[in-house]
Amino acid sequence: MSNSSLGHLFVVSNFGESHGPAIGCVVDGCPPGLPLCEADLQADLDRRKPGTSRHVTQRQEGDQVEILSGVFEGVTTGAPIGLLIRNQDQRSKDYGNIVDSFRPGHADYTYWHKYGIRDHRGGGRSSARMTAPMVAAGAIAKKWLAMQFGIVVRGCMTQIGDVEIPFQSWEEVAKNPFFAPNATVVDSLESYMDALRKSGDSCGAGLRVQATGVPVGWGSPLYDKLDADIAHAMMSINAVKGVEIGAGFGCITQKGSEHGDEMSLDGFGSNHAGGVLGGISTGQDIEVRMAIKPTSSIRLPRNSINKAGEPVVVETFGRHDPCVGIRATPIAEAMLALVLIDHALMHRAQCADVRVDTPVVPAGRSDY
Amino acid sequence: MSNSSLGHLFVVSNFGESHGPAIGCVVDGCPPGLPLCEADLQADLDRRKPGTSRHVTQRQEGDQVEILSGVFEGVTTGAPIGLLIRNQDQRSKDYGNIVDSFRPGHADYTYWHKYGIRDHRGGGRSSARMTAPMVAAGAIAKKWLAMQFGIVVRGCMTQIGDVEIPFQSWEEVAKNPFFAPNATVVDSLESYMDALRKSGDSCGAGLRVQATGVPVGWGSPLYDKLDADIAHAMMSINAVKGVEIGAGFGCITQKGSEHGDEMSLDGFGSNHAGGVLGGISTGQDIEVRMAIKPTSSIRLPRNSINKAGEPVVVETFGRHDPCVGIRATPIAEAMLALVLIDHALMHRAQCADVRVDTPVVPAGRSDY
Amino acid sequence: MSNSSLGHLFVVSNFGESHGPAIGCVVDGCPPGLPLCEADLQADLDRRKPGTSRHVTQRQEGDQVEILSGVFEGVTTGAPIGLLIRNQDQRSKDYGNIVDSFRPGHADYTYWHKYGIRDHRGGGRSSARMTAPMVAAGAIAKKWLAMQFGIVVRGCMTQIGDVEIPFQSWEEVAKNPFFAPNATVVDSLESYMDALRKSGDSCGAGLRVQATGVPVGWGSPLYDKLDADIAHAMMSINAVKGVEIGAGFGCITQKGSEHGDEMSLDGFGSNHAGGVLGGISTGQDIEVRMAIKPTSSIRLPRNSINKAGEPVVVETFGRHDPCVGIRATPIAEAMLALVLIDHALMHRAQCADVRVDTPVVPAGRSDY
Amino acid sequence: MSNSSLGHLFVVSNFGESHGPAIGCVVDGCPPGLPLCEADLQADLDRRKPGTSRHVTQRQEGDQVEILSGVFEGVTTGAPIGLLIRNQDQRSKDYGNIVDSFRPGHADYTYWHKYGIRDHRGGGRSSARMTAPMVAAGAIAKKWLAMQFGIVVRGCMTQIGDVEIPFQSWEEVAKNPFFAPNATVVDSLESYMDALRKSGDSCGAGLRVQATGVPVGWGSPLYDKLDADIAHAMMSINAVKGVEIGAGFGCITQKGSEHGDEMSLDGFGSNHAGGVLGGISTGQDIEVRMAIKPTSSIRLPRNSINKAGEPVVVETFGRHDPCVGIRATPIAEAMLALVLIDHALMHRAQCADVRVDTPVVPAGRSDY
Repeated sequence: MSNSSLGHLFVVSNFGESHGPAIGCVVDGCPPGLPLCEADLQADLDRRKPGTSRHVTQRQEGDQVEILSGVFEGVTTGAPIGLLIRNQDQRSKDYGNIVDSFRPGHADYTYWHKYGIRDHRGGGRSSARMTAPMVAAGAIAKKWLAMQFGIVVRGCMTQIGDVEIPFQSWEEVAKNPFFAPNATVVDSLESYMDALRKSGDSCGAGLRVQATGVPVGWGSPLYDKLDADIAHAMMSINAVKGVEIGAGFGCITQKGSEHGDEMSLDGFGSNHAGGVLGGISTGQDIEVRMAIKPTSSIRLPRNSINKAGEPVVVETFGRHDPCVGIRATPIAEAMLALVLIDHALMHRAQCADVRVDTPVVPAGRSDY
Repeated sequence: MSNSSLGHLFVVSNFGESHGPAIGCVVDGCPPGLPLCEADLQADLDRRKPGTSRHVTQRQEGDQVEILSGVFEGVTTGAPIGLLIRNQDQRSKDYGNIVDSFRPGHADYTYWHKYGIRDHRGGGRSSARMTAPMVAAGAIAKKWLAMQFGIVVRGCMTQIGDVEIPFQSWEEVAKNPFFAPNATVVDSLESYMDALRKSGDSCGAGLRVQATGVPVGWGSPLYDKLDADIAHAMMSINAVKGVEIGAGFGCITQKGSEHGDEMSLDGFGSNHAGGVLGGISTGQDIEVRMAIKPTSSIRLPRNSINKAGEPVVVETFGRHDPCVGIRATPIAEAMLALVLIDHALMHRAQCADVRVDTPVVPAGRSDY
Repeated sequence: MSNSSLGHLFVVSNFGESHGPAIGCVVDGCPPGLPLCEADLQADLDRRKPGTSRHVTQRQEGDQVEILSGVFEGVTTGAPIGLLIRNQDQRSKDYGNIVDSFRPGHADYTYWHKYGIRDHRGGGRSSARMTAPMVAAGAIAKKWLAMQFGIVVRGCMTQIGDVEIPFQSWEEVAKNPFFAPNATVVDSLESYMDALRKSGDSCGAGLRVQATGVPVGWGSPLYDKLDADIAHAMMSINAVKGVEIGAGFGCITQKGSEHGDEMSLDGFGSNHAGGVLGGISTGQDIEVRMAIKPTSSIRLPRNSINKAGEPVVVETFGRHDPCVGIRATPIAEAMLALVLIDHALMHRAQCADVRVDTPVVPAGRSDY
Repeated sequence: MSNSSLGHLFVVSNFGESHGPAIGCVVDGCPPGLPLCEADLQADLDRRKPGTSRHVTQRQEGDQVEILSGVFEGVTTGAPIGLLIRNQDQRSKDYGNIVDSFRPGHADYTYWHKYGIRDHRGGGRSSARMTAPMVAAGAIAKKWLAMQFGIVVRGCMTQIGDVEIPFQSWEEVAKNPFFAPNATVVDSLESYMDALRKSGDSCGAGLRVQATGVPVGWGSPLYDKLDADIAHAMMSINAVKGVEIGAGFGCITQKGSEHGDEMSLDGFGSNHAGGVLGGISTGQDIEVRMAIKPTSSIRLPRNSINKAGEPVVVETFGRHDPCVGIRATPIAEAMLALVLIDHALMHRAQCADVRVDTPVVPAGRSDY
């Protein structure tokens, strides 16, 4: 049991605060023999890092990661991989006015009552900055999954505030600052975000993440079900308030005769299951959607209290994402990859000897 | 790491199959000194058990639980509590036609490929029957939470298939076979379920579970966030495909100025957070919603394959819930209680010495 | 984290008390496909059970184990295996005089202060009776290790009280009631134990357990070293006060030029390492020795206090082993087997893909 | 489950190799509110560090630790504490001759077969250098235990090679380079070590570690017994081959009437239990002894094989401790402190509400 670790066999133990000297993690349980260098991790870190467009926080962080251990002559050794990212662009004085006050919708209040002490600078431990080491760890998982199984993990936005983003193609995602899989909505998103920023407010977002190529059989009946662990991982990302697998909340109004995905050797007929049945992967695409709440640090005045219990009006300065969901795409990918590698290792621990003659049903297509 | 256990400090290790001799669990970590007897567990088991109305499976199980250990002279001793429920009404022959075939939407296919062996009788390990021991364990958690903190955990249906169930009052829930918090929809639900059953099909459902009285401060920043552990627990219930905390997916279109719950010493102004901020309880009601897929075992013919890879048409006999979501109410309550007691114990492990002078914000009301 | 569980991937969760209705455990993580029936477990249970000679406790327990789950048509399914043993021969009134007093050297005093409640009957949870489910679980591990790797786990006594037992052959162990690997000392042991029993006192014992056939490579550098996990498992057996691997305490006066086991393709030249280097198995025999303290429940009067803090003289009635070490042989075997299967599964989780051309050094002989 | 972590609630996750850029750890679960700065950690790091006398390795490392997180304004926040120590004095070329050969008694051979890759430089992950982060983590535990309970953890040598070191006083330990609690043997130790070093050989050692002030009630019945976790922690220190609690192997020849420590309100009459009964602390001193094998890297020629399976003669250059046991004293103290804080937290998780009127028996004296 460790509050700050994720995973059972591929374990990531995270440390750091937004304005401390450094953030990082220990990645324990990576199989030996994986070619790995810092550039492998930097690509996803760069996708997540702040300051890349006017629509995200203007804090400037290179998020350069240093591999401290676990790699020898360019290859993982099986020993734990220490990862370090130095913080560089702290402006702690921006947070002077919230030293003694609690932002509505923020962890300020809960941290204070839990710990009796709080690093208020930049959100401290509750900052989305804590996701950078997870993205680095997730990049290791992604590489291993790709090399061993050809698995591809990718994500995109489905909605930003009021603007829905119909899925067009994965190729579009990297071509705009919104991780939008649709070129036609980019202008609307620009306008929407510009107006939002100007207003001093923030907005929520919808996000989708998918893994293709996952073989049938990963997961467990209960309670470390593949989908349960995915839900845990996604809900442990800052600001996530809802998670769906496959048909998700849509299944409430489905009939069993519609929801159950028919099988033939030509493939599954549909993917309402989202790639998981009974907690175990079906071989179809793993399909996950989530809802991300609006950033709680906004410039608009809100009613709250301070440490003395007195009523205060809080306006938040400092640099914040007006829609924290945007940068969550590489984070959600990382989290999904981390759950998958963990279950890949658990599966071969328990079932390495299993041989079945039954042919595997092809994935078919996901209608998402 | 244990596939079949739930929790970190209050750990429930589950065993059993639908048509095996018995099901049960070991509850490890229950604090000593809690008055406990079998009747304490039976109440919730009776709410969950099959055969109580024509709208659920007609399998007859008394679900009588035996406490095998951990209780001495009516009080818990701190030792693990062994719980045993004998299976009594198996009709394994009803499953003869699926020995070699895979039901669409069912775990048949994934179990087979994972383990190379499958107890097909009544769904084996993937049966909803496995939730009975969790309900018994959850009843222990509920009692401790109530006695130590006055916490109340309760649940109700929000929708069954196409029939929405507006919330009216908690008192209604026990008065109808649908766990519906609204007397006026009961007739519609009766008709809907009767027609569904006659059609041989099944339907999905929406469910809400709430905990009141949870103090501020339970949970962790990452990754054992209170909400992440709740998501994990709920998604580990059979057939759950989506989980929301507080505003859930509704937060996508909320602005930060709306979503962030304002605070005063009169109470929180709203509860969009669902009682959790930064992974830690706020002192407000914990509010969770989930989606439950339609039962995959239906009488209607579906296309599938068998173990030899040949195309087959599967019709499922045996006794099944046409809407497995109905009986999920006590299960979801149990799971929430189990997560809460686990975090209660973790909290006092880490923060037993913390004293804060800041007054606590009253819960306010949840607009759900 | 679970107080009452052992193992990481092959997890045994134990429950029960000496005079409660039943004892048992849940074995989670057993690979599917292992042929298993109750007779497989009963052999070792019978070796451990009480009442088999005048030199052990006269409590009569058949220790008949029931498999409640996880086995279908004679083969493990990968689901957790529930094991149940009903207690049959309790005589709780024998313990009437220690309801309020603490036996010197016994867990009475520590349980009372920890939990504020204590099942005093037969030692409750601290009874050696709790090892029966471990022996049953260990028998599963032994069978899997034997079938998959040809591993043999066996143990014997090295000393009972003042009587040393020089190793002669493994064949002798089953031929006398002392698990003595030497026929010539049996008469001395009979006399020694008869005199001890008559005196009302108890004695300590030395025990050795060995595993042959363990492949090179199981274990981890730190902290789940194979030897560290063995030490944990052995010290978690009731009454064990010391554990050695290989040369053990003898290594204090060894030089490096003597202790380090030389290698050639003819085999290791010695086995001072006891089969573990750097926390990882060498392919040699795993060699473990341990010390077991004398039973604390004796008929001789001892000074102590009662719950009120008053001085009392405690004499223990009830039925006890005058040398609890004797029956510890099958227990220690079970514990070693449980650690080995756990590391076998962890090893293939992390290193399933590793291929090395270097030839393996044969085990050579263990000079113990 | 994490190979490289220690503890359940106070969890230390270690990373690094002897000749990599840095070593360190993440300390998760430290209660908030503990005053902490780097100087608190440096004292024990300096006791462990190499190069402090001619009797230990001559590698020069300042072992300056940097606190990367979890401390704010001089006080722990409850967030994970990242600790970093840069390696400074690597001489990797010294290890050129063992790139392809396996040192007898060293982890070279087992790592190679396990992982298929090995960082040979300075022993890589198997180096005693890995204990530095544990000493730093242990210093946090020591400080908390001292401030909360007045617990003192201390260690000393009992034997170095052939030279026994009778216990005289704890005050002597810091006054000589051997952690010897006896001034009169220091000259003998100097001569013994000088001769040993000259011979190119190495020797084993005996070590004792003690904790005073531990309250009654910490630990669990099974399997996370306090003594079992201590045995695990000690055996996970490099080169430890044996662990004893209290009377240890001496209990084999004790009678029950001698071993069981009598109690009165004046104190325990003896401490054969070593402060633990039934896996739970008695309130007496925790007494642990261990055996440390001779360093396997010696200058004397030894027979071995290389990666191709060919016979080779290995002589080890590089800088090594002729008796690795000497510097193990602060390491063993750290490990004991880590186990104790972990159980302190577990105890209050489960038993925070327990109140017992029975007076506590004073510790009495430990005759060691």
